[in-house]
Amino acid sequence: MTAADRRERLVAALGVRGLDGIFVTTLVNVRYLTGFTGSNGALLVPCEGAPVFFTDGRYRDQAAIELPDVEHVIDRDLASSASRRMDPGPDSSKKWGVETHTLSVDGHANLASLAPGAALAPAGRVVEELRVVKDEDEIEHLRTACAISTKALEGLLAGPLVGRTEREVARDLERRMLDLGAEAIAFETILASGENSAIPHHSPTDRVLEANDFMKADFGARVAGYHADCTRTVVLGRADDWQREVYGAVQASQAAGLDHFLDGAKVSDSDDAARASLDAAGWLHAFTTGLGHGVGLEIHEDPFIAARSTGKLVSRTVLTMEPGIYVPGRGGVRIEDTVLVTTGAPEVLTTMTKDLMEIG
Amino acid sequence: MTAADRRERLVAALGVRGLDGIFVTTLVNVRYLTGFTGSNGALLVPCEGAPVFFTDGRYRDQAAIELPDVEHVIDRDLASSASRRMDPGPDSSKKWGVETHTLSVDGHANLASLAPGAALAPAGRVVEELRVVKDEDEIEHLRTACAISTKALEGLLAGPLVGRTEREVARDLERRMLDLGAEAIAFETILASGENSAIPHHSPTDRVLEANDFMKADFGARVAGYHADCTRTVVLGRADDWQREVYGAVQASQAAGLDHFLDGAKVSDSDDAARASLDAAGWLHAFTTGLGHGVGLEIHEDPFIAARSTGKLVSRTVLTMEPGIYVPGRGGVRIEDTVLVTTGAPEVLTTMTKDLMEIG
Repeated sequence: MTAADRRERLVAALGVRGLDGIFVTTLVNVRYLTGFTGSNGALLVPCEGAPVFFTDGRYRDQAAIELPDVEHVIDRDLASSASRRMDPGPDSSKKWGVETHTLSVDGHANLASLAPGAALAPAGRVVEELRVVKDEDEIEHLRTACAISTKALEGLLAGPLVGRTEREVARDLERRMLDLGAEAIAFETILASGENSAIPHHSPTDRVLEANDFMKADFGARVAGYHADCTRTVVLGRADDWQREVYGAVQASQAAGLDHFLDGAKVSDSDDAARASLDAAGWLHAFTTGLGHGVGLEIHEDPFIAARSTGKLVSRTVLTMEPGIYVPGRGGVRIEDTVLVTTGAPEVLTTMTKDLMEIG
Repeated sequence: MTAADRRERLVAALGVRGLDGIFVTTLVNVRYLTGFTGSNGALLVPCEGAPVFFTDGRYRDQAAIELPDVEHVIDRDLASSASRRMDPGPDSSKKWGVETHTLSVDGHANLASLAPGAALAPAGRVVEELRVVKDEDEIEHLRTACAISTKALEGLLAGPLVGRTEREVARDLERRMLDLGAEAIAFETILASGENSAIPHHSPTDRVLEANDFMKADFGARVAGYHADCTRTVVLGRADDWQREVYGAVQASQAAGLDHFLDGAKVSDSDDAARASLDAAGWLHAFTTGLGHGVGLEIHEDPFIAARSTGKLVSRTVLTMEPGIYVPGRGGVRIEDTVLVTTGAPEVLTTMTKDLMEIG
């Protein structure tokens, strides 16, 4: 699907909302609708007529290459240039959607004062909703990012770990992803060992990995703007009974949640199932985070999995399932996959064993 | 200066604005005021009484370690928990500052509906203004980040460059920063060669570096959350006359701008001086970006250098000076330092020669 196709789908969604167009200011949404990869840009999409892209002088050449088919306006003050295109003049009126979930209060007030003839209306998460269903190119990028991620971890686990620091091991894993072709790491790597594994979002420290530690790695590669998100927890040596118990409880919960990543299933079903599994094992009290989220141009995007989530899953959505058990002072386990919802069984993109690995 | 000292300075600034307190939702401002390094948190600072910190379950332990002296509320819905502390009840009223420059329209409406007894008022960039003047610890982190950055580049320039791709060289530079102790890279490295050097913000490609190319590297290390920002442009081989001319013009402009990084000088003075220098050399038309910005917990922060900037520089501000010449299809040069304003001469933290380097 081209960026122009995406803009066509957007215009259809705007018509349903009774809007004459939308001023897209959320950078990742601008990227989705144009292919622009710079750090400053906005896009005006009228329901009738051609879109206009706004950026500053740094991106003049890049915009010409990345958006050959869209008019550009180069100006440091994007809102000011856009307002001139949004205001239809004194004898008319236009209802423009704006992204009030990300647009700041001050940014909104500025735009309203610059374009007094334009009525600004909340457009909701209309672009984010389009982004939930991935097209072929997006799925291919996500597949590649996930393949790089798991291959990097497999390489890491083949080498020595005990005696190295969390920081060193995290750096090693990141290097492997870059060497395998990632354009960047998808987010700051979580590498937690021993009792640090009880901290869900732990930044790697100088703690030295020891025999019999849990080692939890939550990491991912980025490819063409698309993020992979994967967590595996291993034991450095032989697992003891307690480690086997908590690992088994997380593994069962993750499998239970994944079973509900089906076209047409309620988003909350997977939440219910993963929690029920942890509860049956007596460990629900030790699970303190969310169970999953969409992945794509953002590392966390729609849909978000929670008991209160109201939507249904649809084919071609990519999201994570990541239950965990965290026991302060002792240790913790998380298992997380990035998964593609299909019309059949869910396709796990982070294809790597989830059976307990005892390393070294 | 401790986080508690910073909060005291904040309360003084709030009093001047007639506010009863502030609800800080800008994550980097929360970090500045608390030391919290997680990805989700907010801080309520009343002018009278103790501050309260809000985060979700992922950061329970981290918050206990990083903010031992501040009350925490652990709840997925930060606005909802905060609103209960902001609403003084039916018989009273409180005027709370909110960060309308970053708070979304929807976030603001949600907060207003949750805390109907609280009056929400724009607090302006009150925390950003405090952050302009760095304390000793901050300067030390910035100094370290800059030293790592320049040392990494010096190492890179000592090795072979011609025949390698932009991407390989960028990766090499990033590895050197991490090996020298950076916790992360400060931003995605710009590594541009040959005619790509004409693109101000160029993402590294598979273009192979050739003899006589300009090679421009805009890069930096991050240390304890603080960012370095440095650009050097070198010639791979002997510079020709045109390369010497544009390099000399940028070097002179950068020096002219730096001369005005003085305690008490108008921010716009450095803009005027750097532009006048480029203009005198006949190259102002080829300069298309901004001249500089503050650096600290963000890579781009207050103050921003522009002709329309109204403020004055004060001692202990850290900012960049980065003029350039960009000639599409041919090449370009940028020279950028991260600089500390002092009561005397400005102190360049990215201490590395700015004379034209002809490499290899």
